[in-house]
Amino acid sequence: MKEIGLQELADLAVGATLLGTGGGGDPFIGRLMAEAAISRYGPVRLADAEELPDEGLVVPAAMMGAPTVMVEKIPNGREIETAVATLEKILDKTAVAVMTIEAGGINSMIPLAVAAQMNLPVIDGDSMGRAFPELQMTSFHVFGLKATPMALVDEKGNSLVIDAIDNPWTERLARTATVAVGGASIIALYPMTGRAAKRSMVRGTLTKAMDIGHLLGRSRRSREEKLNVLREQHGAVELFTGKVVDVERRSGDGFARGTVSCIGLGAYADRVLRIEFQNENLIAMCDGRVVATVPDLICVADRETLMPITTEGLMYGQRIVAFGLPCDPVWLTEKGMETVGPHYFGYEIDYVPLAGARARAAQ
Amino acid sequence: MKEIGLQELADLAVGATLLGTGGGGDPFIGRLMAEAAISRYGPVRLADAEELPDEGLVVPAAMMGAPTVMVEKIPNGREIETAVATLEKILDKTAVAVMTIEAGGINSMIPLAVAAQMNLPVIDGDSMGRAFPELQMTSFHVFGLKATPMALVDEKGNSLVIDAIDNPWTERLARTATVAVGGASIIALYPMTGRAAKRSMVRGTLTKAMDIGHLLGRSRRSREEKLNVLREQHGAVELFTGKVVDVERRSGDGFARGTVSCIGLGAYADRVLRIEFQNENLIAMCDGRVVATVPDLICVADRETLMPITTEGLMYGQRIVAFGLPCDPVWLTEKGMETVGPHYFGYEIDYVPLAGARARAAQ
Repeated sequence: MKEIGLQELADLAVGATLLGTGGGGDPFIGRLMAEAAISRYGPVRLADAEELPDEGLVVPAAMMGAPTVMVEKIPNGREIETAVATLEKILDKTAVAVMTIEAGGINSMIPLAVAAQMNLPVIDGDSMGRAFPELQMTSFHVFGLKATPMALVDEKGNSLVIDAIDNPWTERLARTATVAVGGASIIALYPMTGRAAKRSMVRGTLTKAMDIGHLLGRSRRSREEKLNVLREQHGAVELFTGKVVDVERRSGDGFARGTVSCIGLGAYADRVLRIEFQNENLIAMCDGRVVATVPDLICVADRETLMPITTEGLMYGQRIVAFGLPCDPVWLTEKGMETVGPHYFGYEIDYVPLAGARARAAQ
Repeated sequence: MKEIGLQELADLAVGATLLGTGGGGDPFIGRLMAEAAISRYGPVRLADAEELPDEGLVVPAAMMGAPTVMVEKIPNGREIETAVATLEKILDKTAVAVMTIEAGGINSMIPLAVAAQMNLPVIDGDSMGRAFPELQMTSFHVFGLKATPMALVDEKGNSLVIDAIDNPWTERLARTATVAVGGASIIALYPMTGRAAKRSMVRGTLTKAMDIGHLLGRSRRSREEKLNVLREQHGAVELFTGKVVDVERRSGDGFARGTVSCIGLGAYADRVLRIEFQNENLIAMCDGRVVATVPDLICVADRETLMPITTEGLMYGQRIVAFGLPCDPVWLTEKGMETVGPHYFGYEIDYVPLAGARARAAQ
C-alpha cells in the first residue's frame, strides 16, 4: 500500500510543478494545506483505480482561479471538506475516495488535504496528466461525463451549487463566481462512480509526479542520469538548451499570456527558441518552426539542476533546458484535440506530434 | 376569497408600473407569462398573510437582471417552477404559498405565473411596497431574514443554488451569475415560514397595485376624481406639473442612471423639477430644493391620463405630473434607511419626509 506522507508531498510538489508545464500555479499554498492536514491526520493512502468499488462515489476536488490570490485569501482549511460534503449531501451518498483533476501545479495538493481530513484514499491519477486552465479540459469531459453538480466555496463561507447544461457552461458560471468571491475558490465537481472513474481517468499521474519530483529533487543522480531517466521512463524529448533573452508578458482576460525567447547554447548555438504561453506553455518554436504544441507537455527547467521553472519564474539570463513530454493518449482523440488542441487556444497551428520534435529541432 | 384572473392582471400591470416609480421593469414579459399560466390553469387565489400556516414554507420568486434582456431570452415558462421546486427540494418541504418580492414592475407578475402553474395561492403583499434594484433591499432583510438558500435558473436550463454569508453577498453572487447567463435570470429566494412572512412582509401591496391600476386604467372617473382617490386613499402628494425638457441618460455599472428635467406649467410656471434616477426615481428637486427622496415613491405620470411613465418612456415634450407616495414604515427604521436611503444610493442628501413635500414645493 502506497502512502503520501510529508516526504512524498515534497516530491510531489516538484514533480507537479514540472507537469504544470509552466502553469498550474505554484503548489506553495496547496502544499501548506496538505502538510497541515497530513501532520494532523497522518499520511494519505494512495489507492489504485482498480481498488475503487464500481458503485462508490468518487469526488474530485480542486482550487479554481489565481493561486497568487489564494496567498492573500488564506484558506481556513475546511473549504475543501465543505465542497466535497456538499456534493455528498446532494447526491445522498458518502464518498469512497477523493480524486485529482489536474496533477500539475497546486491542484495536485488540494485533494490530499481533504483526503487526510476526511480519512479517504486519493486515487492515483488525474484527468489531465498535466495542467490545463479550464474545467472542461478533462478526460472526464472527453468521456462524456458532466462536471455538475458542482460545489464552489470560498474562505468566507459563501457557497454555490452549479447545475449547468454542459461543461463549458459550468466553466463559465464557476469562473464568474470565482471572480466574484475575490479571484480564487475551492471546488468539488465531476462527482462520479468508481466505474466511471476507472473508465475515464488518466491513471498513475500522482506516482509519476512523485517519481519525477524525487528524481529531480532528492535523488543524488547526475544531470545526465536524470535526463536519461526522463527520456527512458517518461518519454522526454529534448527541445532546446539556451539562455532566456526576453520575456514578454501580456495579461488581461484572466490569463497570464506571454512569450519567452531564448538563444541557443552548445548544440543549439545560433538558434532561437520561442515559447508561447497562456498560463501553461502551449507552443514551442525553434527558428520559427513549430517543434512542440499543446496538448503535449512543454517543460522548462534549470539547465544544471533540471528543477522546473514556471512562467512566472522566467527571467532574463536564466540558463534553461526545454523538453517535451508526451501527453496522455486521451488528448489525441478527436474530442480531446477539439478540447485542448492549439486551435482551441487560438493558434492557427495544427498539433505536431512530439516524437518528431528532436529531429525537427535539429534540422 | 379574492382571485387574480386576466382582468385583475391587467389592473395589476398598470398599478405595478406606478409603484415601480420609473423602474422595476416593464411588466410586459411577466404579464405574458402570467397570462399564459392563468389562461391555462385558471385564476390565482390571493391569500391574506393571516391565512398562512405558521410552519408552512413560503417561497418568493422573481426575475433578476434587465427585463429588456428577458424579451430576447424568452422564458420557457418552467424556470420559475424549477426555481421554487429547487428550494422545496433543498429544504425538504412543500411550499404552501408563493410570495412577491417587489410589487413594482415586472416582479409583480412572475409569482403569479408560478402560483398558477403550481396551484398555490399568492400572498397579498411584497417585501418593498415598490421596486428596488438589489436583493437585500427587502423588509425581510430589515427583519434579519436570510435570502439564502437561493435558486437561480436561466431559460437554457442552467441552475445555481447560492448559500451566502449575508444578503449583500447573495446580491453580489446572484448578480454576477445573472450577467454570466446573459443578463436575466429567474430566482427563488428568502424561503421562510408563514410566521416569518407575517412578521416581516409589507402587506396588501398586490391589492393596492390592483386598486390603483383599476382606478387609472379601467375606471371611468375624471382626472380630478382619480387624483383625489390617490391623495385620500394612498397618501399621494403632488410634487409638480410640467413639461419634460431634457432627459440625460448615463448608463454603465448595470444601472440605468440619469436625470429628467421639467419646466413647470400652471401653478408651477417658471419652476424647474429635476428627478435623479438609477433604474427607479430616487430624488426629486424643485428649483434645486429636495422635495422628495427614496425610499418614498416618486411617481411620474401623464398629466391628462395619469398613466405611469417609466424612466425608459420619458421623452422631450411630455406633459407630466409628478407625485410622491409614502413608503412603507419599515424603510423609516434605522436599518431600513441604511439599506435604501439616499446615502446608500450615493447621494449626500438626507431623507426628506414626504408629508412636507407639497409645502416645500410651493415655497
